[in-house]
Amino acid sequence: MAEQTLPATGREWHLAARPSGWPVPEDFALVEAPVQAPEAGQIVVRNEYLSVDPYMRGRMNDVKSYAPPFQLGAVMDGGAVGRVVASAAEGFAVGDPVLHGLGWREYATLDASQAVKVDAALPLQSFLGVLGMTGLTAYAGLLEVGSFKPGEAVFVSGAAGAVGSMVGQFAKLRGASLVVGSAGSPEKVRRLTEELGFDAAFDYKAGPVAEQLAKAAPEGIDVYFDNVGGEHLEAAIGALHVHGRAVLCGAIAQYNSTEPPVGPRNLALAIGKRLRLQGMLVRDHYALQPQFVEEVGGWLRDGRLVADETVVDGFEHAVDAFLGMLRGSNTGKMLVRVTG
Amino acid sequence: MAEQTLPATGREWHLAARPSGWPVPEDFALVEAPVQAPEAGQIVVRNEYLSVDPYMRGRMNDVKSYAPPFQLGAVMDGGAVGRVVASAAEGFAVGDPVLHGLGWREYATLDASQAVKVDAALPLQSFLGVLGMTGLTAYAGLLEVGSFKPGEAVFVSGAAGAVGSMVGQFAKLRGASLVVGSAGSPEKVRRLTEELGFDAAFDYKAGPVAEQLAKAAPEGIDVYFDNVGGEHLEAAIGALHVHGRAVLCGAIAQYNSTEPPVGPRNLALAIGKRLRLQGMLVRDHYALQPQFVEEVGGWLRDGRLVADETVVDGFEHAVDAFLGMLRGSNTGKMLVRVTG
Repeated sequence: MAEQTLPATGREWHLAARPSGWPVPEDFALVEAPVQAPEAGQIVVRNEYLSVDPYMRGRMNDVKSYAPPFQLGAVMDGGAVGRVVASAAEGFAVGDPVLHGLGWREYATLDASQAVKVDAALPLQSFLGVLGMTGLTAYAGLLEVGSFKPGEAVFVSGAAGAVGSMVGQFAKLRGASLVVGSAGSPEKVRRLTEELGFDAAFDYKAGPVAEQLAKAAPEGIDVYFDNVGGEHLEAAIGALHVHGRAVLCGAIAQYNSTEPPVGPRNLALAIGKRLRLQGMLVRDHYALQPQFVEEVGGWLRDGRLVADETVVDGFEHAVDAFLGMLRGSNTGKMLVRVTG
Repeated sequence: MAEQTLPATGREWHLAARPSGWPVPEDFALVEAPVQAPEAGQIVVRNEYLSVDPYMRGRMNDVKSYAPPFQLGAVMDGGAVGRVVASAAEGFAVGDPVLHGLGWREYATLDASQAVKVDAALPLQSFLGVLGMTGLTAYAGLLEVGSFKPGEAVFVSGAAGAVGSMVGQFAKLRGASLVVGSAGSPEKVRRLTEELGFDAAFDYKAGPVAEQLAKAAPEGIDVYFDNVGGEHLEAAIGALHVHGRAVLCGAIAQYNSTEPPVGPRNLALAIGKRLRLQGMLVRDHYALQPQFVEEVGGWLRDGRLVADETVVDGFEHAVDAFLGMLRGSNTGKMLVRVTG
């Protein structure tokens, strides 16, 4: 294929200020920047979908954490998929669909070694969601960290979110006896049971989590997949069976709080029940990738999996999408479509 | 050996009332009861040492837990060692040293199948401590639950207690790079470093645990063995390295509290650090018993292990010993010597 003519500039979203508590639009800046021509070994990608994820909120703080902080005045990187529009790298042709980590910009110039070519037969955006880090997080968390076995009962918080909606579906497809999800609105709750195959779901804003969980899973649970923290984790510790497991994957309830969080007051129950609470990051589980792609890719092709997503159109609305995701306005994976 | 003449009666400690908060002497009753002659398959044991343990406080409450509650007006069972004084069971002779579960009484009549003959070459009381459930708890907790490996740094709370003093010594003998303990008095702290081989120790009553731990282990820890809960656990979560483990073995800070406990407010750190917090009961680890007896018995015979114990003389002082143990008046294993 012929090389396309690169535009002189493209838009980028920069971090303009570090938020305290909830981020506001003024913390971000939309900037026009030159598009770099590829040097030897590099490619230029025109991004088509950007991922906005809860972990990005943590990177907006200037603290040492598992991911380095975003720098003030620099682009907010993140997962993205797009197509090659210029290539000076062997094995990458114009038009190839790729996955890479330079999101929050329209055009990315990068070493080809930092991009992964993806299967053109599958929807491009699925590599940011169900077949990407989101799906692998759910898969590894449920199976490796949570040691889920067929016949067990699973509770997932943030179940209408990108990871949560996969956890619940994977558990059902793998033979769970019961899958319960919590979410933040009646519409999401309805979607969980009517479209995603959850056995039960509840709106955590409608009453105490422990009471609603006890109604949904009166005989208790074996695995709790935590995307929320706080009251949810405490309720789950109370409901877990002997030798139950809690997968600590997210604490979105705390990310924007300026109050000190409350720890689970019933944690001493973990002794007698021999519970295991284990934190996870997907980066520890890349070895599971081939098995994950085979099994989940198969479910996706067979139509057994609902790859829920909320797409916000327009690069200029990336911040709105990010803030909306933090507030829970999405169901499933929240994506920004750059074209639009 | 000839059968000894059994006395008509022996003394027992009964639970007289269920405490709220700290137990008081009036919650217990010293009762004179008939000594039952052995039926076929039974033995009578004159107890020589009784074990008093933190878990017994939980059994005084009338709540479902991992050990059934003590019944009002009945004996407070527990671990005991003694010698057979009458036998109607094959394989058990008068004079044999045995370990069994009918403590808090001077004489126990029981099915021989519920007693274990122990090695007469080792001190009888060691089967309640370093070679008993106490030692196995420390051994299994450190190695199986805590996945301790040579070269790692270990922090133990309640380190002058029966389990804690073993955890620290086992860790050193297994090649820990650093062993830090916390205890509740300057005398105990001195004993940990000067006699039990801990690298560092501090008095948790002398200042914030997190600050004292940071001084004692400035480069952090790999394994935390929790006998205390509360502030200790929170400090340990802060100090644990990536992939660190917390063994949840006890929460003595909470056993007598009528206030709701405070959970670790920094538990969300477990996500990025991929911490594993795991509760344990020794009953899940009996398969480790042969390896445990071989390795720890060897250390004991070689004089490489200090089997710390505090012995209270006199059956009539069993309650004092129990209450003293709950308040931390012991160093090492707290025992009651029945003869005295």
